[in-house]
Amino acid sequence: MSGGGRTPTVEAYVEGVRAGSRAWIARAITLVESTRPDHRAAAQRLLVALTPFAGGARRVGITGVPGVGKSTFIDALGSRLTADGHRVAVLAVDPSSTRTGGSILGDKTRMARLATNPAAFIRPSPTAGTLGGVATATREAIVVVEAAGYDVVLVETVGVGQSETAVSEMVDSFLLLTLARTGDQLQGIKKGVLELADVIAVNKADGPHVTDARRAARELAGALRLLHPPEGGWQPPVVTCSALDETGLDDVWRQIRQHQDTLDASGDLAERRRRQQIGWVWAMVRAEVLDRLRTHPEVRALAPTVERQVVEGTLTPALAAERLLAGFARPVDPSAEPG
Amino acid sequence: MSGGGRTPTVEAYVEGVRAGSRAWIARAITLVESTRPDHRAAAQRLLVALTPFAGGARRVGITGVPGVGKSTFIDALGSRLTADGHRVAVLAVDPSSTRTGGSILGDKTRMARLATNPAAFIRPSPTAGTLGGVATATREAIVVVEAAGYDVVLVETVGVGQSETAVSEMVDSFLLLTLARTGDQLQGIKKGVLELADVIAVNKADGPHVTDARRAARELAGALRLLHPPEGGWQPPVVTCSALDETGLDDVWRQIRQHQDTLDASGDLAERRRRQQIGWVWAMVRAEVLDRLRTHPEVRALAPTVERQVVEGTLTPALAAERLLAGFARPVDPSAEPG
Repeated sequence: MSGGGRTPTVEAYVEGVRAGSRAWIARAITLVESTRPDHRAAAQRLLVALTPFAGGARRVGITGVPGVGKSTFIDALGSRLTADGHRVAVLAVDPSSTRTGGSILGDKTRMARLATNPAAFIRPSPTAGTLGGVATATREAIVVVEAAGYDVVLVETVGVGQSETAVSEMVDSFLLLTLARTGDQLQGIKKGVLELADVIAVNKADGPHVTDARRAARELAGALRLLHPPEGGWQPPVVTCSALDETGLDDVWRQIRQHQDTLDASGDLAERRRRQQIGWVWAMVRAEVLDRLRTHPEVRALAPTVERQVVEGTLTPALAAERLLAGFARPVDPSAEPG
Repeated sequence: MSGGGRTPTVEAYVEGVRAGSRAWIARAITLVESTRPDHRAAAQRLLVALTPFAGGARRVGITGVPGVGKSTFIDALGSRLTADGHRVAVLAVDPSSTRTGGSILGDKTRMARLATNPAAFIRPSPTAGTLGGVATATREAIVVVEAAGYDVVLVETVGVGQSETAVSEMVDSFLLLTLARTGDQLQGIKKGVLELADVIAVNKADGPHVTDARRAARELAGALRLLHPPEGGWQPPVVTCSALDETGLDDVWRQIRQHQDTLDASGDLAERRRRQQIGWVWAMVRAEVLDRLRTHPEVRALAPTVERQVVEGTLTPALAAERLLAGFARPVDPSAEPG
């Protein structure tokens, strides 16, 4: 532990990443994912060095519930994009993933073609516990792959908890994959996710399902116009595609490009990215402050009693809040904390 | 200022409120709205004393954009409810209101009949600046009017910022008023508000507009089924009404009652109120902690530079967050603060 014999220098990382070395890109992402304090410090130096070379990619978030065909879609879309000369990085935000078990990208056979494609780079979701931690690592990984020359970054989310919101805040465009309805309902749309979508694609529009998918897309577009009138001018288009048959993928990509080009032309893209950067800073600050609140020993000790008294009516919520805040204001005794 | 000669005792408030005296109810609400520390302390003692008598009302939130006919609706619905033997309190959450100017309930002529109805009590929105402050005062006013024997509490919100969310978190049922569409869009539905609604009513279904209103209700119901499949079993019904003609109001009230009775029968109502109470405590704690962060002199001094460096790429968001947190950790010098 006495001084980084095995940790490469930041300069070595920068050189390797800038040269496009897959091994160095992978090591750099591992560094930004690490929670070890010395790794965190090195990672931040690395990111400062890489930032001037980043920012050149189209950043696209992709969400959809399990079963919607996300892996097949990304495999097919990514392959087309590399055939057109793009270099495609696929990242993921899945706070529920573990290295050993259910990582949504842990099994590279999920994207069999992209996994062996020299113009593509696939990285599973980091496995740190909190969504905040996972999202931060993925945001930082975007800087790494952009500095390595990837010009399309696809960020996948499996749609656990607030992960869609986190992803929508690190990309330029957000694509929602869904399915034609069965019975009277659309499948695979989580509450609140429609509001985040810039483009919507009804997948599995193939074989006998083409008619259903088209009708679903039409109805969804109508419902969206009815319920969510456009505010900023961009009305999310609803298209159909089949990742399996590889039909409609060009149309999906054209809509994504058009969304970004529309943003870019008005200056909104640069402004969006600037706001995302600043927002990210404050989100980390707020998360840390609220985490300190949540884990403060005095607050934890007070909470059960205070909550019970509020429910019983012997303590008002305002007084309860005062007591918890008073507990939070007391300094933490480091000797009383677990290592 | 030397010791409460003019402030009545808490016992006097309790007695006056419990006796149903309108003057005492008004004074009690003024007390819970006050931000003066000695008033706040007395208000909390008062709320502890009143809480055993509170909790017996149906709490209904009502939202809808200006022009949707909220005042006329509440005036008509409230009058019917008092005719049926109910005692109706109308409160409001409008962070944009001022005593002198645009208070949404400041002008009692808005609800001409209810304003002179002995079984009704109308209270304008508190005028404290922040939504948190306004919402807290209104939540506390609910305790006062319930302890005074009002068995229906209608909480109106004009739909500024996050006020609908705040209101939905203090009521049992949330009613969204809207209008038939003009052209291809429904009018008066703010993004994110549909998700909060337990009952939706298309108002102004009168005269030549009845057909339009019914079609709008049908289409809205269809779109809701498509986009927001019911999760907990309750699918928000969409009905039509005319506050002007006083048609459909019974149907709206029946749907609200049915929603609450459904919740009540499953035990969800008690659980919802318990969660609201606890949630309220933590919301106040979080708001205060984040307010301290936002107003911390060191953080305020650091923020512009740090934000600029992040946008320029010379500082990573993670390091920026660390600097702001370090600033927040520094003790505030009281002598450097404005009085």
